[in-house]
Amino acid sequence: MEESAGNLGTGCKLILSCNSWTKHSEVAGLVVIKSNYKHFPGGEGSLKSFKMSSIASKFIRTAGKVIRCRAAVAWEARKPLSIEEVEVAPPKALEVRLKILHTSLCHTDVHFWEAKGQNPLFPRIFGHEAGGIVESVGEGVTDLKPGDHVLPVFTGECMECPHCKSEESNMCDLLRINTDRGVMIGDGNSRFSINNKPIYHFLGTSTFSEYTVCHVGTVAKINPSAPLDKVCLLSCGISTGLGATLNVAKPTKGSTVAIFGLGSVGLAAAEGARIAGASRIIGIDVNSNRFNQAKKFGVNEFVNPKDYDKPIQEVLADMTNGGVDRSIECTGNIDAMISAFECVHDGWGVAVLAGVPNKDAVFKTHPMNLLKERTLKGTFFGNYKPRTDIPSVVEKYMNKELELEKFITHEVPFSEINKAFDYMLKGESLRCIIHMEEET
Amino acid sequence: MEESAGNLGTGCKLILSCNSWTKHSEVAGLVVIKSNYKHFPGGEGSLKSFKMSSIASKFIRTAGKVIRCRAAVAWEARKPLSIEEVEVAPPKALEVRLKILHTSLCHTDVHFWEAKGQNPLFPRIFGHEAGGIVESVGEGVTDLKPGDHVLPVFTGECMECPHCKSEESNMCDLLRINTDRGVMIGDGNSRFSINNKPIYHFLGTSTFSEYTVCHVGTVAKINPSAPLDKVCLLSCGISTGLGATLNVAKPTKGSTVAIFGLGSVGLAAAEGARIAGASRIIGIDVNSNRFNQAKKFGVNEFVNPKDYDKPIQEVLADMTNGGVDRSIECTGNIDAMISAFECVHDGWGVAVLAGVPNKDAVFKTHPMNLLKERTLKGTFFGNYKPRTDIPSVVEKYMNKELELEKFITHEVPFSEINKAFDYMLKGESLRCIIHMEEET
Repeated sequence: MEESAGNLGTGCKLILSCNSWTKHSEVAGLVVIKSNYKHFPGGEGSLKSFKMSSIASKFIRTAGKVIRCRAAVAWEARKPLSIEEVEVAPPKALEVRLKILHTSLCHTDVHFWEAKGQNPLFPRIFGHEAGGIVESVGEGVTDLKPGDHVLPVFTGECMECPHCKSEESNMCDLLRINTDRGVMIGDGNSRFSINNKPIYHFLGTSTFSEYTVCHVGTVAKINPSAPLDKVCLLSCGISTGLGATLNVAKPTKGSTVAIFGLGSVGLAAAEGARIAGASRIIGIDVNSNRFNQAKKFGVNEFVNPKDYDKPIQEVLADMTNGGVDRSIECTGNIDAMISAFECVHDGWGVAVLAGVPNKDAVFKTHPMNLLKERTLKGTFFGNYKPRTDIPSVVEKYMNKELELEKFITHEVPFSEINKAFDYMLKGESLRCIIHMEEET
Repeated sequence: MEESAGNLGTGCKLILSCNSWTKHSEVAGLVVIKSNYKHFPGGEGSLKSFKMSSIASKFIRTAGKVIRCRAAVAWEARKPLSIEEVEVAPPKALEVRLKILHTSLCHTDVHFWEAKGQNPLFPRIFGHEAGGIVESVGEGVTDLKPGDHVLPVFTGECMECPHCKSEESNMCDLLRINTDRGVMIGDGNSRFSINNKPIYHFLGTSTFSEYTVCHVGTVAKINPSAPLDKVCLLSCGISTGLGATLNVAKPTKGSTVAIFGLGSVGLAAAEGARIAGASRIIGIDVNSNRFNQAKKFGVNEFVNPKDYDKPIQEVLADMTNGGVDRSIECTGNIDAMISAFECVHDGWGVAVLAGVPNKDAVFKTHPMNLLKERTLKGTFFGNYKPRTDIPSVVEKYMNKELELEKFITHEVPFSEINKAFDYMLKGESLRCIIHMEEET
């Protein structure tokens, strides 16, 4: 009989054991600890040690065993996810099994759920923005142990390939994003099943499940004090936009930055420009309603291409005495990409493409636009190395440099995960946090 | 009656005065100094001071007066230049008059001599790679004085515009290259004339004349010990290629660099890669005969696109386990530009475009090539600021880091300047140095 490892959220609620995912019971000891936090013998550090060792000892009960838990399964394209009881096999060599506490929905999930990806795979468990805790580790895993707080990431860092050894790249040869793969890279099998029928993984993360199995190279160990219901956002979109600005465009203090597309990635790019001290942050979007929200992220000017008869790069050049210092393209639309490049100032302008283009798109420009000392770059996951760099992005949040709360427009319990899809499809949400732990 | 200021070459030959540019007379005093160089009282420094003050006092005789001297005039497109006696007016405000000692021929001269430029202007005095000495300065010039050794440059640095104030740009708003302008920027007139009929300037330099007038912002003051018959090459093409590598592509030690086009600019780019310590320098050219020469510049592998049935970027990827670390495009051919971009490694590859494209050219690529963390940049004059940076490039030659001699395949006296055009048109020369001072 498998055990459910229960919940271990930021509210210090620990359920030691329950046979069904619908039942929760609290452990009095830890509730007491929570309310007497500062008085715990040995102080906060000891509390953490105690908590960690409690967690670790808890997970000893499930380690090596199949876990039965809830997962939101996509049985077919465009159909609401179905909450099912799935079996999650123990991690094999170089794998870790995570207890997911909070996850959020990203456009990429929706894109593949809509079967717009090149190789639709169903049934599948989507989800790739999440925060969790290591439940158990497979053979050969030395960097992580049960109880570690982690963010699973859709792309990995093996630490050994030329990309991982390069200071400039985060495009790991072994664990680079693979949207077609629905199984573990180690043995080509899935760790999820229902009645022995495999359910496919997604992006190596499949965080729409209470438990999931990831390759150790795709799991970033973070500060255990960080609230996972906030920093889970750093697994994908927010880091992509933030890094596009901070790591790639690198605006200097007082500079002018154009942001193409004011969705989550674009707003994270704007947040990066705000952090960097840009004085003019110009948002470009065909939906003028987004401007008000964007103001919270430092966007202080707004341009809607629909309001002009001439190319938006010309409008921006007129507004900025020849062009912006930096631009970040976050829509994936090819025309926006070309505009984002051509709107940067000659001599020093840098354009960064962060949006994922259509497979048939062609980027076209006159080469003199380059010869005039403009730079065109693309970025993948904001050029962050998942394991090496993401912990420091979490610290940016912890020291209040980076504000994450404003990205969270909605929150739902796991059982209502389909609402998150509705919010996104209606364009109502930036990020909807899905809490695996139901309110009791 | 105007005076000819005579010659003042690297051989320390000083002609104090002659009424015609066909007569030369040597001054015994300086010839003695030359042969007793190390024994001159006070040592080499005193010798230099003496020489400089002698030069300065010499130029006092011509300052403020029209100088009659030899110039190679292009009366019409594609016709041999004609050595004529021209009148060179004194410099006006913020201008300097230079005595040109050595000049060389660059493709850009030939391009505009062939009237392939957008606005053919004749009669015109071409020439923009040169070394000389300041003869006199106009009102308001404080940075230069008669006797200073200088390189005139086809693009300027006003020191005050946003580009000049930016650390990233050398594209001065005031003095940026202007191939259409045939007059001085200050008053819209030419300083050259024959029988009162103006002769047009070229690129603000017109160095195919014994004397020329330049805006002070286009004149780099250099180490007076530097041999002008060598460092004159740094006025244009060699700096463009060298800077494309050292300032823009920035290969690291041990990296792999592809150079597209093995003309002078490409070989200078290779020289930059050699200086940077690149271990593989792959030359790409449709003329296989160029490989032997290129070996001198550090090129140690060669690829001729004509030898392959597949795109050269694929050939290079196969040769380099996925792509080169850096590429520099020095042909201006649009297909070479696209190949140069697509041949760089994902994750960290940087492609730099240095060749000047056709005005109808369109750069096309799939945006995923960018999203995979490739960088595409263009450069203008190797990103060197003419006045701020070129003196340090001269020092690279002086300290033997940069080798210039190997670029000099031909040398001709000024009277035979048309031979330099022949060598270039036949593809026989890299650089042909034209010595203004005739052998006596």
